Amino acid sequence: MTVLFDRIAFIGIGHIGSSLARVIKRDGLARRVVASARNQATLDKAMALGFVDAVTLDPIAAVKDADHVVLCTPVGAYAEVSRRIGPHLKPGAIVSDVGSVKLAVVEAIAPNLPPGVHFVPTHPVAGTEHSGPESGFDTLFEGRWVILTPPAGTDEAAIARVEALWRATGCMIERMDPAHHDKVLAITSHVPHLIAYTIVGTASDLEEHTKAEVIKFSASGFRDFTRIAASDPIMWRDIFLNNREAVLEMVGRLWEDLALLQRAIRMGDGPALERHFARGREIRRSVVVARQHIPPAPATSSGSANAKKTTTTTTKKNKKKS
Amino acid sequence: MTVLFDRIAFIGIGHIGSSLARVIKRDGLARRVVASARNQATLDKAMALGFVDAVTLDPIAAVKDADHVVLCTPVGAYAEVSRRIGPHLKPGAIVSDVGSVKLAVVEAIAPNLPPGVHFVPTHPVAGTEHSGPESGFDTLFEGRWVILTPPAGTDEAAIARVEALWRATGCMIERMDPAHHDKVLAITSHVPHLIAYTIVGTASDLEEHTKAEVIKFSASGFRDFTRIAASDPIMWRDIFLNNREAVLEMVGRLWEDLALLQRAIRMGDGPALERHFARGREIRRSVVVARQHIPPAPATSSGSANAKKTTTTTTKKNKKKS
Repeated sequence: MTVLFDRIAFIGIGHIGSSLARVIKRDGLARRVVASARNQATLDKAMALGFVDAVTLDPIAAVKDADHVVLCTPVGAYAEVSRRIGPHLKPGAIVSDVGSVKLAVVEAIAPNLPPGVHFVPTHPVAGTEHSGPESGFDTLFEGRWVILTPPAGTDEAAIARVEALWRATGCMIERMDPAHHDKVLAITSHVPHLIAYTIVGTASDLEEHTKAEVIKFSASGFRDFTRIAASDPIMWRDIFLNNREAVLEMVGRLWEDLALLQRAIRMGDGPALERHFARGREIRRSVVVARQHIPPAPATSSGSANAKKTTTTTTKKNKKKS
Repeated sequence: MTVLFDRIAFIGIGHIGSSLARVIKRDGLARRVVASARNQATLDKAMALGFVDAVTLDPIAAVKDADHVVLCTPVGAYAEVSRRIGPHLKPGAIVSDVGSVKLAVVEAIAPNLPPGVHFVPTHPVAGTEHSGPESGFDTLFEGRWVILTPPAGTDEAAIARVEALWRATGCMIERMDPAHHDKVLAITSHVPHLIAYTIVGTASDLEEHTKAEVIKFSASGFRDFTRIAASDPIMWRDIFLNNREAVLEMVGRLWEDLALLQRAIRMGDGPALERHFARGREIRRSVVVARQHIPPAPATSSGSANAKKTTTTTTKKNKKKS
């Protein structure tokens, strides 16, 4: 493997950051990996797990001499973090992030970066419901999409270096306009999470059924929603606060469509229900054809089958990985 | 294994019916297993797969001399099927079903059964998004709940025989009032499916994003909804038409809760969002503790880990299975 960076600094080292750090360490993509977090316990875990060379509570110390800084905190912390580290970034350094919203992220970070520092906003469309450095794994991004939303005029060499880093994870790469990104993710990710959080709350609120009963019979569909609703609360709070417009627009569309189905049920309109439901199967088929249906799992356990399968979907440029 | 029934007849032999038939054949629980379906291709598949001894397009021929008849069609067909087979049932025979709603099922079937025939309504709370006799597997019910809703006064010996049959699948058994069943399942199963169908439709309707883009980035949450929305359209049409009142009540509660979260997003109320989202993790934890979080999979593939895990949760009476 080629060394792509001399020193990479992670600000935040949770599920996503630690998964990327594991790939970097595994493939020797950086000479030195440094992590900063607000919590010493998180840093101790990261050190013990062996995918970082040094840790510090001070983000300024972490970014010193780093040629690549990856922001992996909840997106709500990006403005403050970038304000603090901005003046201490090495000239020519690349700053990227892994946030699930992009328009607000660009607005929060870009003004705090000095001239000569390259900003390459990044969103790996992958993850599980778990969080913390112990939950990451080096196959998390295999066969998944990573979206880059670099502002017009961003240095192409800097973009290419970020792409090379991500390619090592086995992912596929797409470039997108940040506003378009936020709309696509609002419907594919943010609204599904909002709905999962809603329904899980509604179910546990039901007074006439004990909570235990809802959980007991959760294998009938509810289970899948609880998995999604187990995602990190702070991370998701920040996503909704930072993608408000697109999320509210998509929720509005959802209300209208739900009202139609609700009415079909009330009126006993079987053909309308059947027509709508039949579309679900077709769409699922497309997801399976696109090989995005296999849930992520560490390669060490039952996920090995998964890793094997997804590897076959990676493009030529990733073949070295299999 | 003990032979529990001399002749069992399945009316409908899809995902659930064929899974039960596989257990019966595997453990020798009946001397003869007969299946009826509306479609010869389905029957041919069932015969080829080897878990039935005979097949027929004629439900009346199927139930002749059967001491247990299991209705496994979509619930919308129960009234007609029971009307047809009713006069031909053997005195003392037991009729059960596997429908996901119970109040409407009791109303549809009970009046068509002659005196001396025992009716034990049953709902195995298990399944995948797949359908057809080829999609079943003999570990589908392991560690899952099977709910019985026998009307007051039902012969206890008949209930005990149905329970013994289901216990062989490795499931856990619960008795419930049919109206209560329908409320619990409305929130744990029916509304989650309705929402999944809605959101999958909304996403694919979006004109400004191509369908491919929604599918491409489906690993971000949408994927899980497409799996649920891939369930059998006819089966689900019938569930909604037959559990209308409970479903509409639960959808109403969901609207109210979604409106609160929507307002919190609009007003930028971070603490409210965080509070709500934090509950999701707790509830997921309860689902995991109840061991209902492991998705079903045939024991022959990656599901072996699953089967092993769920077996440890079965109660003493099922220990013979491990």
